[in-house]
Amino acid sequence: MASEKQLIERTGRKLPLGRGSGVRVGMGDDAAVLRPKKGVEWVLTTDAFLENVHFLLRVHPPEAVGYKALARATSDLAAMGARPLYFLLNLALPPRCTGKWYDGVLEGMARAARSFGLTLAGGDTTRSTLAAINLTIIGEIERGHAVLRSGARPGDLICVSGTLGEAELGLQLLLRRGPRTKKWKRELLQKHFYPEPRLDLGQWLAKKGRATAMIDTSDGLSTDLRHLCEASGVGAKIWAAEVPKVVLADDVDKLRFDPLQLALDGGDDYELLFTVPKGFERHLPRAIHGVPVTVIGEITRERRILLVDDAGRTRNLPAQGWEPFRK
Amino acid sequence: MASEKQLIERTGRKLPLGRGSGVRVGMGDDAAVLRPKKGVEWVLTTDAFLENVHFLLRVHPPEAVGYKALARATSDLAAMGARPLYFLLNLALPPRCTGKWYDGVLEGMARAARSFGLTLAGGDTTRSTLAAINLTIIGEIERGHAVLRSGARPGDLICVSGTLGEAELGLQLLLRRGPRTKKWKRELLQKHFYPEPRLDLGQWLAKKGRATAMIDTSDGLSTDLRHLCEASGVGAKIWAAEVPKVVLADDVDKLRFDPLQLALDGGDDYELLFTVPKGFERHLPRAIHGVPVTVIGEITRERRILLVDDAGRTRNLPAQGWEPFRK
Repeated sequence: MASEKQLIERTGRKLPLGRGSGVRVGMGDDAAVLRPKKGVEWVLTTDAFLENVHFLLRVHPPEAVGYKALARATSDLAAMGARPLYFLLNLALPPRCTGKWYDGVLEGMARAARSFGLTLAGGDTTRSTLAAINLTIIGEIERGHAVLRSGARPGDLICVSGTLGEAELGLQLLLRRGPRTKKWKRELLQKHFYPEPRLDLGQWLAKKGRATAMIDTSDGLSTDLRHLCEASGVGAKIWAAEVPKVVLADDVDKLRFDPLQLALDGGDDYELLFTVPKGFERHLPRAIHGVPVTVIGEITRERRILLVDDAGRTRNLPAQGWEPFRK
Repeated sequence: MASEKQLIERTGRKLPLGRGSGVRVGMGDDAAVLRPKKGVEWVLTTDAFLENVHFLLRVHPPEAVGYKALARATSDLAAMGARPLYFLLNLALPPRCTGKWYDGVLEGMARAARSFGLTLAGGDTTRSTLAAINLTIIGEIERGHAVLRSGARPGDLICVSGTLGEAELGLQLLLRRGPRTKKWKRELLQKHFYPEPRLDLGQWLAKKGRATAMIDTSDGLSTDLRHLCEASGVGAKIWAAEVPKVVLADDVDKLRFDPLQLALDGGDDYELLFTVPKGFERHLPRAIHGVPVTVIGEITRERRILLVDDAGRTRNLPAQGWEPFRK
């Protein structure tokens, strides 16, 4: 079992530290002291990644736990169009998690931090009965450029990045047991283990200034679309045929997953769901910084969220993604 | 059991929100967007307040849980000399804690927020098996004015605010059972339940520019003094007779508490421990903004931490305050 001091030293050795880049005081004091640049606003978010709620010690490799904790939190910055700068790491660990397991977590978190451009500015460590990783992410954006949830207007087109339902499929496969699980390739678990916050796309949209509203699909399309519509005071119509669904391999297909269901209600994808004024779709590349972008519906004045199926029939689309307090 | 949406709504109704005061986007979006003022640095800290580690549901009133969670975290800003501005609230709650208990927590937290000048800028809510309150506090300070742990120099005098050991005494009394507990007055529990971060004193010292190092006594004098000395590369000598110790009432005295032991190793006081150059003590009022300040020792070149007892004998002062991972 490591002491608090040892834990902090290992953390500081492994993670990129922000000395000299706007960080006047980093780890090791009561608080971090940071120097904001001129002309920017600061974008801050906080996120919890908890044992037995968001990950299972027996199922998730420690590298994936460390990577995903930071990726999930940073995705909130992508959804504003902000550039990540610093993070604060608030750890609560049971003694059994302070050794090799934590080294693996740091490995994954360091990879994520480098990939997203984040440096560690401070944090806190305490003991607990279950492992908990709480993160605060600090980013910046030019004044007034942040893309909010609340700007969608009737007639706007609804777009989404990447493919939906991959992370949920990975989770479902991971939780199934038996001989069949061996067959599935590691790549099907990639998006569940190592999601990629769409930072470049988010910043591209914020810079263009034409996205009217944006959110990341952390809870699932049906739930996150509702968040966006409620914040904007509008409704939406989604065309089922247009939703970019995960393609099931033959052996996975036999397990009777419904790709549309996975895409609508599966959480943890961390794609960007955003709206643009009608006509702007012509200026929207099919892929931005390598990430495909698809128009999947339109914003309506009537405050209902509807799904139009392949036969043209319309039905209500209930929010059935992730809700932490659902019974 | 409340839904996530209901929880967020109750939180937003109860806690002071920072709209229009540098908060461009507050609760309800993916992240908060904040506008830094010119000429200031930002001071950020993160702190966890966990069920069964920092509080017990059966022992601590929910108001005290909410108040103390915010007070502890804000004390880190006091220890830098910073002014509190905003906070992010990251909640992990079991369903049984989402009702009346959480209303009590909000009550205490709202009182603390108003008292410290903090407004809520955002947060996150999730379900868990044990209640956890994670806070990120954002403050500001004039460029270069933050008082770090690392500036103490040999010959500097060591000062402390308030009285030490009161919070530990309160905790000990609280954890004892039996008929005797009824006699102790509520006031003995006040400092354990409702500690007061020394914000005015910290800002006074930062403004004067004469404190060479500062830390808050969250872990206890013997441990926090070691943190300060290690960061500064120095040692210290503490005069036992000068340490402002809690005065025991007759009935409490019979329980054989040692006031010096409580003062040296008791945690959770959130007083300020700071150093000033020799000679500056003449300019140091006996009380600053109503908080008494006492000179209790001096910084030494030799990197040992010593205690000089009433008879003039010197012994090592081991760090025996709070260490989360002690066996």
